[in-house]
Amino acid sequence: MREPLGSLRINADLFNALMGKISEFGATGDGGVHRPALTDAHKAARDWLCKQFRDRGYEVMIDDIGNVFGHIDLAGPDAPLVMVGSHLDSQPYGGRFDGAYGVIAALCAVESLRNNTMKLGATPRCNYVVVDWMNEEGARFQPSLLGSSVYAGAVDRTFALSRTDMTGTSVKAELKRTAYMGSDPPPRADCFIEFHIEGDDKMEKSGAKIAPFVRHWGASKVRIEVTGEQNHTGPTPMEDRHDAVLGAAYIIAKIKDLTEQASDTLYTSVARLDISPNSPNIIPGKAVLFAELRAPEPDILEWAEAELRSALPTLADRASVSAEIVSVERRPAGKFDARLIALCKRAADDLGLKRMQLDTIAGHDGVALNAIMPSIVVAVPSVKGVIHRHDEFTADEDLVAGANVLLQMIARLDAANGSLDDVGDNT
Amino acid sequence: MREPLGSLRINADLFNALMGKISEFGATGDGGVHRPALTDAHKAARDWLCKQFRDRGYEVMIDDIGNVFGHIDLAGPDAPLVMVGSHLDSQPYGGRFDGAYGVIAALCAVESLRNNTMKLGATPRCNYVVVDWMNEEGARFQPSLLGSSVYAGAVDRTFALSRTDMTGTSVKAELKRTAYMGSDPPPRADCFIEFHIEGDDKMEKSGAKIAPFVRHWGASKVRIEVTGEQNHTGPTPMEDRHDAVLGAAYIIAKIKDLTEQASDTLYTSVARLDISPNSPNIIPGKAVLFAELRAPEPDILEWAEAELRSALPTLADRASVSAEIVSVERRPAGKFDARLIALCKRAADDLGLKRMQLDTIAGHDGVALNAIMPSIVVAVPSVKGVIHRHDEFTADEDLVAGANVLLQMIARLDAANGSLDDVGDNT
Repeated sequence: MREPLGSLRINADLFNALMGKISEFGATGDGGVHRPALTDAHKAARDWLCKQFRDRGYEVMIDDIGNVFGHIDLAGPDAPLVMVGSHLDSQPYGGRFDGAYGVIAALCAVESLRNNTMKLGATPRCNYVVVDWMNEEGARFQPSLLGSSVYAGAVDRTFALSRTDMTGTSVKAELKRTAYMGSDPPPRADCFIEFHIEGDDKMEKSGAKIAPFVRHWGASKVRIEVTGEQNHTGPTPMEDRHDAVLGAAYIIAKIKDLTEQASDTLYTSVARLDISPNSPNIIPGKAVLFAELRAPEPDILEWAEAELRSALPTLADRASVSAEIVSVERRPAGKFDARLIALCKRAADDLGLKRMQLDTIAGHDGVALNAIMPSIVVAVPSVKGVIHRHDEFTADEDLVAGANVLLQMIARLDAANGSLDDVGDNT
Repeated sequence: MREPLGSLRINADLFNALMGKISEFGATGDGGVHRPALTDAHKAARDWLCKQFRDRGYEVMIDDIGNVFGHIDLAGPDAPLVMVGSHLDSQPYGGRFDGAYGVIAALCAVESLRNNTMKLGATPRCNYVVVDWMNEEGARFQPSLLGSSVYAGAVDRTFALSRTDMTGTSVKAELKRTAYMGSDPPPRADCFIEFHIEGDDKMEKSGAKIAPFVRHWGASKVRIEVTGEQNHTGPTPMEDRHDAVLGAAYIIAKIKDLTEQASDTLYTSVARLDISPNSPNIIPGKAVLFAELRAPEPDILEWAEAELRSALPTLADRASVSAEIVSVERRPAGKFDARLIALCKRAADDLGLKRMQLDTIAGHDGVALNAIMPSIVVAVPSVKGVIHRHDEFTADEDLVAGANVLLQMIARLDAANGSLDDVGDNT
């Protein structure tokens, strides 16, 4: 059976048509999309996806945190269930591949397997579910990976529903408004495979077309509130000022310094800063910093958080303000399923595609899923490593090659009756 | 005539009623008001003011930058014209006295003069105009003092109309929407008197109830654009990041350091920072800093601006970004009219009110007006020097005392036929 399955390919015309169509939702006219979670553009994209599912005979299930599942029964009720997919929400004015690629590749791979296995004299032995996770990006609502984390039991649903965007609108309200507050019990799968564009240029530099992620870095997302005193920027004497933005500036500089002070790899950023009232001639009374610390080694992450915590009072004092950490969201470092990594390598080799191994530093739904089931995230290259920007780009042939690796992976899994122990062993 | 005019007092009941009423427009429920320029709340306050004018027989004139004038002819067409007033717009979630006090005090002072001079056997010799300047605060639209600066010829009207708020809405569009795009030629006055709450606690500390401003500090409002590169906060290696917010942090710290490096008094701030895209996991591609430098001495201000300009490349380089000054709005330091200062002192003395002299550091419409006519801004105390905040507060008796000083000033001016050379000389 290996030969016939090895000859399977996705329908590239279908893939290109679907990628073209999904890129229209929230299109910004410069190649990118603006499709933050639960906006009208996101809803339109999801409505379209549901129609794709229904038109092809998939059962659409929507759970009570707005994850969308397209389920196709190929092998009867007791067969193993393989889950594939990613997310359709985007960063604000982000790119068209991040997330959407993984969903379209998943649908095309399952479609190809479904339409061709019997022609090749094989019988499907697994059922499949293509998933679109709710609010992966965490741009409009924090934290990120919200839908997959609730699915995985790592985040409380009530907490998730109560998250609000900058204008105070909640996830709950927006799920209801967009009609994605479902009540279907989410399908429980036996493994999860996600394909995604890379957020680095390592693949491009090495010429690799496929890269299974082996480890996911840990992350601490730290929210810091700096409190000063609102007053006029004119008459208030310098020594009487309590300027929250000045305090924030000292903290931002320190958070960057941590990367040089750490004894091993550490990435840090403060990418969002909410300033109140943010008026040119009022000394800011409040500033909220959204800091991220990321590291492959747990002890470095722990060190960085402790160092930041202990430095805060001195930094705040320099600006005569107070500063406190109001929340920390910790994502532990970890490893993806070794058998799925081996399966991915074998599929790439069979297709003659150059491959490499990578760690993922960014969060992915597959990281959340990995806590409860064998999971993997596989990268295809992104030109210059650009991601979260309108000009992120992956060539059609690289996208199709990735989708074919996904197809080979699920075809091998299917042939092995869904057993991870019986695939990928001869790499 | 001096004795009867010296006995004039404003109608405190009317004053309190009008202050109470004006404080309702945009009231935030905590004592403050949210009445940024040309918002619905601001429009409602202006509509109410126009009704007050009309009900009392004042001619309402609205010029083509939305300044509102209430003109009362008491002495015939050739008589001198005395202008009094301030502004009705507020800072976002600001206090109820800043601006509004000066308008209400002006109306009450003119009303008292008008209703009582003839009873006292005197004949008015001047005409009066009570003014509400458009967008004094500069919170919603920059620069501040917009209406008075266009009136004074310091700012081009087309430029002023093209100013936009954070959402891209223009002054022009909002003037039209609120029906304050007028076509009346603005009245040309012979002098301008503005009363305002203080933005410092010097008066409270000394027990003074009246403080004419003698000098106004110079200010340079510098807008700096920091350009980095938008990318994912996760996978982008630290050495490949171009983080606009990190660059902004270094610049903010430097701008504060200038105050310690300057050889004489210098105040600085960065109170507004517009970050793009301001998402927790996207390295910010752009940050715009709204910096202010203020000093009583012109050479210090010049030094500070030059020092900042020369430091920018190094600061930007530290964060691998670029930074450039995209605009500078300079307000030269200056002195208010000495005769009006003397008049104010005499009026305060006649009323037995403790007085002191101050400089104003904040901008006031009176600063803009001072360039084209004899002008003065006079302060009444503000508890703890709080201003631009919901809890700014001045006791009723201090407000009324200030309004009575204003009344005495215009009564003396009126008795002197509007001649500044014949008033305030015996202080």
